[in-house]
Amino acid sequence: MTFHDLHHGELPLLLPNAWDVASALAFVEAGFPAVGTTSLGVAASAGHPDGGRATAEANQVLAGRLATLPRPVSFDVEDGYSDDPEQVAVYVAGIAAAGPAIAGVNIEDSTAGHLVDPRAHAAKVAAVKHAVPGLFVNSRVDTYWLGQDATVPATLERAGAAVAAGADGIFVPGATDPDDLRVLTSAIPVPVNVLPVPGLSLAELGRLGVRRVSTGSLPYRAALEAAVTVATAVRDGTAVPPAVPYARVQELLVGYADARD
Amino acid sequence: MTFHDLHHGELPLLLPNAWDVASALAFVEAGFPAVGTTSLGVAASAGHPDGGRATAEANQVLAGRLATLPRPVSFDVEDGYSDDPEQVAVYVAGIAAAGPAIAGVNIEDSTAGHLVDPRAHAAKVAAVKHAVPGLFVNSRVDTYWLGQDATVPATLERAGAAVAAGADGIFVPGATDPDDLRVLTSAIPVPVNVLPVPGLSLAELGRLGVRRVSTGSLPYRAALEAAVTVATAVRDGTAVPPAVPYARVQELLVGYADARD
Repeated sequence: MTFHDLHHGELPLLLPNAWDVASALAFVEAGFPAVGTTSLGVAASAGHPDGGRATAEANQVLAGRLATLPRPVSFDVEDGYSDDPEQVAVYVAGIAAAGPAIAGVNIEDSTAGHLVDPRAHAAKVAAVKHAVPGLFVNSRVDTYWLGQDATVPATLERAGAAVAAGADGIFVPGATDPDDLRVLTSAIPVPVNVLPVPGLSLAELGRLGVRRVSTGSLPYRAALEAAVTVATAVRDGTAVPPAVPYARVQELLVGYADARD
Repeated sequence: MTFHDLHHGELPLLLPNAWDVASALAFVEAGFPAVGTTSLGVAASAGHPDGGRATAEANQVLAGRLATLPRPVSFDVEDGYSDDPEQVAVYVAGIAAAGPAIAGVNIEDSTAGHLVDPRAHAAKVAAVKHAVPGLFVNSRVDTYWLGQDATVPATLERAGAAVAAGADGIFVPGATDPDDLRVLTSAIPVPVNVLPVPGLSLAELGRLGVRRVSTGSLPYRAALEAAVTVATAVRDGTAVPPAVPYARVQELLVGYADARD
């Protein structure tokens, strides 16, 4: 089943977001049919704040490392790291060329916390689709995420420009109101992606028309929380939270290295 | 208080092991006075099994990124990535030169799962101490860890050779028997480091003479576990485990970037 096909299953595609190879392998082992990346996780690993175009190089390295993952991977490439559509297309083509696992990208329509002109963003989407037609381009509309023009009409206008430019999916992080979601998914002709909505199950989001739910940075932030909790528990003698056994991590890594070499 | 001084507190030094910048920052924020690295975590992040000399380059990158951490950092450099003591010294000097936070290294006396000749290992320790006299060199004795010559006399012989070569501390991962620990810490004239021992508190390990307890790969493995658990919980609609808030991670990263630039 292709990455595109996974957006048309019975339930929305739940896409867990990895920050490195072992987290991606752990998601695959847990049965997730595809894996995303998290720009916060990738930026934080390298010591940079999220959203500042700091992950361009780290994503290239990560794409090389995930190139042979046995499940499709979608990369979060922030805003494509450039205002120039051709530069964005060259960058994304490089990510896609890293290997057969790379099946999609997320490109956001904001730069440094501000919405960009919808036509400028659509030009990036068009350039990427022209350069790598088979790649699933998930175009992010940051109206709700940034609290700027956070209305259904403004979001639909931006989504429409991206779809006209060839976007395969529309991601609206921060959209949570069921009525908004119903209108957005009805009006947008490609799969709509949201972040998890507290209180709404995957099935309920599916009934509202959502086709994909990304965990975003949540797994990385839960990972940080667990790391501190376990170290504190060892220090204070309290109950130590669960951890994947050392031998199991090694087994995953040896298996991946063997399949790659 | 210097990193050396931290080995002489009332309780053993609890050293949590980071795999990237954000995990190191989270440990600092949680009040730990120093931070280690985990070779499993660093290797796994890059998609390599642990213990195969695969982390040399990744550690150089990480040392650059942690160079300005406001707490001392001790790097796990496996076996120094070479059989040649001078090569090991050049490598470690490069790690130490990355920045003021780099205060120590762990060097293990096994290569690819096998103990090396104690004299060969001691020569590495001596070369490193000659090149970087102020660095805290924690010499790992892998007898218990590998289950090879896992006896007190064999361990003491190896520890003695490393101490004679200038080691500032001795790390015996896998040693858990209280009687063994009492004999080891009495006979070894420098601070002795162990992994957490289930059932023994930090204070109890301190009373057995232990001066440092490293969490090893446990935080990274707990992080992987939490990442999978949280993604599965979102998919299945079960209770979502705690996570550091997005804004808090960003705040840590912005603060670190501001202090660095």
